[in-house]
Amino acid sequence: MSVTSVSETSDPSGLIGAPVTVPPEAPMRWNGWGDAALAKDLPLAVRALLPMKLGRVPKAAPAAQLEEIVLAPSLLSDEDAAAIAEVVGEEHVSVEAEARVRHSGGKSTPDLLRRREREQQAPDVVVSPASHEEVLAVLRLAAARDLAVIPFAGGTSVVGALDPERGSHRAVIALNLRRLSGLVHLDEVSGEARMLAGTTGPEAERLLAAHGFELGHFPQSFLYATLGGFAAARSSGQNSSGNGRFDTMVLGMRVATPTGELTLGVAPGTSVGPDLARVFLGSEGIFGVITELTLRVHRVPETKAFEGWTFPDFAMGAAALRQVAQLGTGPTVIRLSDEAETGVSLAQHGRIGKAMSGGCSAVTVFEGAAADVASRHARTAEVLRAAGGISTGADPAEAWIKGRFGAPYLRDSLLDHGVFCETLETATTWANLEALKRAVSEAISSGFAAHGAKSLVLCHVSHIYPTGAALYFTIVAGIKGDQLSVWEAVKSGVNDALVASGGTLSHHHGVGRDHAPWLEREIGTTGMRMLRAIKAELDPTGIMNPGALLD
Amino acid sequence: MSVTSVSETSDPSGLIGAPVTVPPEAPMRWNGWGDAALAKDLPLAVRALLPMKLGRVPKAAPAAQLEEIVLAPSLLSDEDAAAIAEVVGEEHVSVEAEARVRHSGGKSTPDLLRRREREQQAPDVVVSPASHEEVLAVLRLAAARDLAVIPFAGGTSVVGALDPERGSHRAVIALNLRRLSGLVHLDEVSGEARMLAGTTGPEAERLLAAHGFELGHFPQSFLYATLGGFAAARSSGQNSSGNGRFDTMVLGMRVATPTGELTLGVAPGTSVGPDLARVFLGSEGIFGVITELTLRVHRVPETKAFEGWTFPDFAMGAAALRQVAQLGTGPTVIRLSDEAETGVSLAQHGRIGKAMSGGCSAVTVFEGAAADVASRHARTAEVLRAAGGISTGADPAEAWIKGRFGAPYLRDSLLDHGVFCETLETATTWANLEALKRAVSEAISSGFAAHGAKSLVLCHVSHIYPTGAALYFTIVAGIKGDQLSVWEAVKSGVNDALVASGGTLSHHHGVGRDHAPWLEREIGTTGMRMLRAIKAELDPTGIMNPGALLD
Repeated sequence: MSVTSVSETSDPSGLIGAPVTVPPEAPMRWNGWGDAALAKDLPLAVRALLPMKLGRVPKAAPAAQLEEIVLAPSLLSDEDAAAIAEVVGEEHVSVEAEARVRHSGGKSTPDLLRRREREQQAPDVVVSPASHEEVLAVLRLAAARDLAVIPFAGGTSVVGALDPERGSHRAVIALNLRRLSGLVHLDEVSGEARMLAGTTGPEAERLLAAHGFELGHFPQSFLYATLGGFAAARSSGQNSSGNGRFDTMVLGMRVATPTGELTLGVAPGTSVGPDLARVFLGSEGIFGVITELTLRVHRVPETKAFEGWTFPDFAMGAAALRQVAQLGTGPTVIRLSDEAETGVSLAQHGRIGKAMSGGCSAVTVFEGAAADVASRHARTAEVLRAAGGISTGADPAEAWIKGRFGAPYLRDSLLDHGVFCETLETATTWANLEALKRAVSEAISSGFAAHGAKSLVLCHVSHIYPTGAALYFTIVAGIKGDQLSVWEAVKSGVNDALVASGGTLSHHHGVGRDHAPWLEREIGTTGMRMLRAIKAELDPTGIMNPGALLD
Repeated sequence: MSVTSVSETSDPSGLIGAPVTVPPEAPMRWNGWGDAALAKDLPLAVRALLPMKLGRVPKAAPAAQLEEIVLAPSLLSDEDAAAIAEVVGEEHVSVEAEARVRHSGGKSTPDLLRRREREQQAPDVVVSPASHEEVLAVLRLAAARDLAVIPFAGGTSVVGALDPERGSHRAVIALNLRRLSGLVHLDEVSGEARMLAGTTGPEAERLLAAHGFELGHFPQSFLYATLGGFAAARSSGQNSSGNGRFDTMVLGMRVATPTGELTLGVAPGTSVGPDLARVFLGSEGIFGVITELTLRVHRVPETKAFEGWTFPDFAMGAAALRQVAQLGTGPTVIRLSDEAETGVSLAQHGRIGKAMSGGCSAVTVFEGAAADVASRHARTAEVLRAAGGISTGADPAEAWIKGRFGAPYLRDSLLDHGVFCETLETATTWANLEALKRAVSEAISSGFAAHGAKSLVLCHVSHIYPTGAALYFTIVAGIKGDQLSVWEAVKSGVNDALVASGGTLSHHHGVGRDHAPWLEREIGTTGMRMLRAIKAELDPTGIMNPGALLD
């Protein structure tokens, strides 16, 4: 067992080793992930591997430059603009092409492929309110003037939740919520923080760290995404095995809808009717806008410990993780890569030879008070060892932490090289885990094969629960024809396979527009009726994010 | 530290020390709690203490006998009865007086006081379906024939959720769900059990124990209440600090409504839209009937350890529990009595002398694998000791476990002696805990004083969370006038105080009809509109439990 300790003072933000130090205030690249300055080309070893695995594909055509983009003229009338400006101030209403392009969608691979084209869809206006009251006023105004509203903050959706869909309305507003940023109140005794919903992950951690607290929610979108987005999309982070999914951190919220507002969450536990906050968690902006969240926070961990593991195969690794989850031995992070992902990961680090030796690698991280970290680490190690795991020391887990926000940059490089790359994820019970993994992998491979494309499917267990786990798939494929239409067909087959094989359509990316046509198969006709009834009550004219979730 | 171990074989049911061994198949006393054979008179020490504390009150008038009860004639038509009998079988449709009286409400003190009267309200018919399909058919039929439906199973509501309210409908059915009992499927790998919603607590534990599993949900209603009731009322049990509230155990459910059915819950974690199962958790039968639940279960604990504690005062005890909750040191049960409750509890056990010495007693119980129980116990003890606690050994915690389902019997004895007794509970943040406790205690005392009644208010912390805790109040009062109307006035003042002081109206009893007039003050106008919109969609004619939750 190998333990690395980090004292509170050396890492007050809790972002140990995060390599991407771009200030989160800087906007993301409009046509790729993150900070352009941090973009990097594929490692040589990977470039060598790809043609062997995927066949040769032509390099992508050069992407359109920002100034070359052609947008349809804004449909917002001058009267609309003036009325909105009266609420938020003229400087917070923009119909400029750049602002519109920057709010034209999320960061799925289809989004990025569309961003490479010269002609693009965009919202008619970008509006940036600064408070709950301004959001409420804008929504009322939008309903009265028949303007659709797409709530937008970090812009990191990978399921099409941010498409500038006008629906049947006159025009469409991208409602940028980033000005709603800040810590409203911290109750240090109870460990409760009230924060504005447009606060990004790093901003939230900095504000809390100043008081010795941490939220501890680290999805891959962490550096850009906002608290409201985590809530609206039911996010799950890399530390969720220890700190819980984002929805378990939410103790209360304020919501603005076109027809009224809500303040929810009185006590840490209650039996007072259905938990209405849960109706907004996962609602993806179709009922209204989450403007403020009351969140469970904890003291910045005193200590962190890291340990990597290797298992002979995925089945043994998964069984080991299951035992850890069911005994409640408490790692903060635990992940298991399958054989293919383990091989590629080793290749990326220039250890091709090792990749051939097979096996599955896992990482564990423990955070908390020193005494507890030591005992949880020891107990987890004992369980993993008894289940056939062999420790690989602290290095692999530390390396994973250091690189954990960097993966999306690789996708941009692959796309530049003409190689298609996308991710998708699901979850199921432990008993069904391997069957689902096979069904999804098969749907991906055969889907691409039907279009004459070779593909490589990597998978890891990203989150564990006592009763099951999440599977995260990374896909690279050598598509010779139109990448968008091939992927649409493959993805459709994967969604069918998920429904047929007992997987959920998404464990932490959400529904958006990409999964919406399958929603009814997961929640049933009566479930759809419930969602539509709530929407009809709160948003009777249907202006909120038309086409997302409910299709 | 004192540890008592119980091997798996000596207590396969997990019901260690439960003193009430009545088969759960036996119905409860129609006019009191539990099994008539187990009713017991007040301990002498308590009888001596009461007049000193509450003044002398006259003994209650003799309660009406079952055969003396006068009911209004059933309003069910022969055609109604015949149509229902076609679905469930004639023998499962009863308009007999005894059946109707036995389904005429729950077990709150007002319920029990009303049960003592000669003239009583009762449902027009008791219908007992045996399956999801039969429930669905009965609900459709009831909607078509304009019959109200009160879902009824254990009959343990203490908030008026089971009143036979006809509303604007022709007649009212008590829908007894006890025939939907059983284990449908156990996934031993994942730790998931599908169980019918009418299964009682003990039945569920027996069925699971046969496979080495436990649900581990032990509210005071455990011996009679059913899984569906736990879900519909968002129950929390005595082991919830370790095993979680009942709603956290629910992975999925089947629901029958008057206009359709739902099967919810695909994966242990998902981001696919709002969690619709959460809309039925806490819905108290106003949308439909939960017929089946998929529940997280765990292996029967290998070991249990018990330890009692004493703290100089409530504030120090509460601060100690907070540290335990926030460090996540993991007791399965932890409770803290205030000074008054500690004193009465000692008095009950004939230790009046000790009661005078003051202080607050606490109990802790740890369940799980031997190694984990030992380390969690040691860590919790360390935290409690550092926070000023002094161990009182295993005995007090073991005594508490043995007596934990017995308290409601005392209430029946008190009522016989003319002494009013009732409980209520709430929850709030740790920072607000003492202020809320004072506000509620004051509302109770001054409320009774305004009616010339002396009262005694006992309180304990019954459930802990990282951010707050639940407060459970036991009230005894010497009311000279009409107990029902005095209590109604006092309770109204308490509900006002809860809303004004940041407490939830109920942490685990629910809303029913007793808290319904205050619901809007907790969830707001927009929250009420959401609940009404869902109800209008699923139950457009409003037949489901009219008057509960939504008033």
